[in-house]
Amino acid sequence: MELDLYSDERFMREALKEAVKAWDMDEVPVGAIVVSQNRIIARAHNLTERLQDVTAHAEMQAITAAANHIGAKYLTDCTLYVTLEPCSMCAGALFWSQVGKVVYGASDPKRGYISQAGKLHPRTEVVSGIEAEACSDLLVEFFRKKR
Amino acid sequence: MELDLYSDERFMREALKEAVKAWDMDEVPVGAIVVSQNRIIARAHNLTERLQDVTAHAEMQAITAAANHIGAKYLTDCTLYVTLEPCSMCAGALFWSQVGKVVYGASDPKRGYISQAGKLHPRTEVVSGIEAEACSDLLVEFFRKKR
Repeated sequence: MELDLYSDERFMREALKEAVKAWDMDEVPVGAIVVSQNRIIARAHNLTERLQDVTAHAEMQAITAAANHIGAKYLTDCTLYVTLEPCSMCAGALFWSQVGKVVYGASDPKRGYISQAGKLHPRTEVVSGIEAEACSDLLVEFFRKKR
Repeated sequence: MELDLYSDERFMREALKEAVKAWDMDEVPVGAIVVSQNRIIARAHNLTERLQDVTAHAEMQAITAAANHIGAKYLTDCTLYVTLEPCSMCAGALFWSQVGKVVYGASDPKRGYISQAGKLHPRTEVVSGIEAEACSDLLVEFFRKKR
């Protein structure tokens, strides 16, 4: 059996590690990473409670960090991995970033950009359902514990 | 003639001052302020070029600054004034912030949240067209000079 170091599954597990960091801080457990040429150039997780800032979603911070890393605002050669389908705000930011590819784990039928008629950039490739069960389980368990 | 210190027009002129600051930095001239109980608690303008960050729209920064100011993430008692109709990203952020009222100047038929089927929070009051000509003129002149 070969181990594919550069598979979507492998990178999604890195995003999952970020989601677990959010969990450990009692934040809604969503994590994101940005990959360029098979290198992780940004890692982030949800920080809306810690920062008391609704804009501090994992994707927003990952976009800003990746742009800082490459010194340019467009992420055309990058892939963003996120454990949960982006919301309208994050989809809007991803649109502006012209990110090359978005890979997400769990779907978000209620607040995800698809049900909200949000749009990514027409040149952005989208892959969904990668490690979806692990991504979703983390969220379900988080909210179960909160009740 | 009475001077209304707390009119939407007066506060929009403060947002316009922010837009002019963006212009002076060769940024697309959009400005925003957040008002709570007739006090300006946040001022911001577009900084996408300076920061090389597509998320650095005036509204995003104003939301973060206002939340920092009040020490809470919800802006239910606040009004955001912005010189241009918010895009989908900013509308998404405003949705999450549950901002009480949004007042914008110029419409943006191409990238504004309305044409993009974006949504604000159902409890957010929206007022448009305040000082629209001044807000629009600044943008038109900016892009005319760029050509």
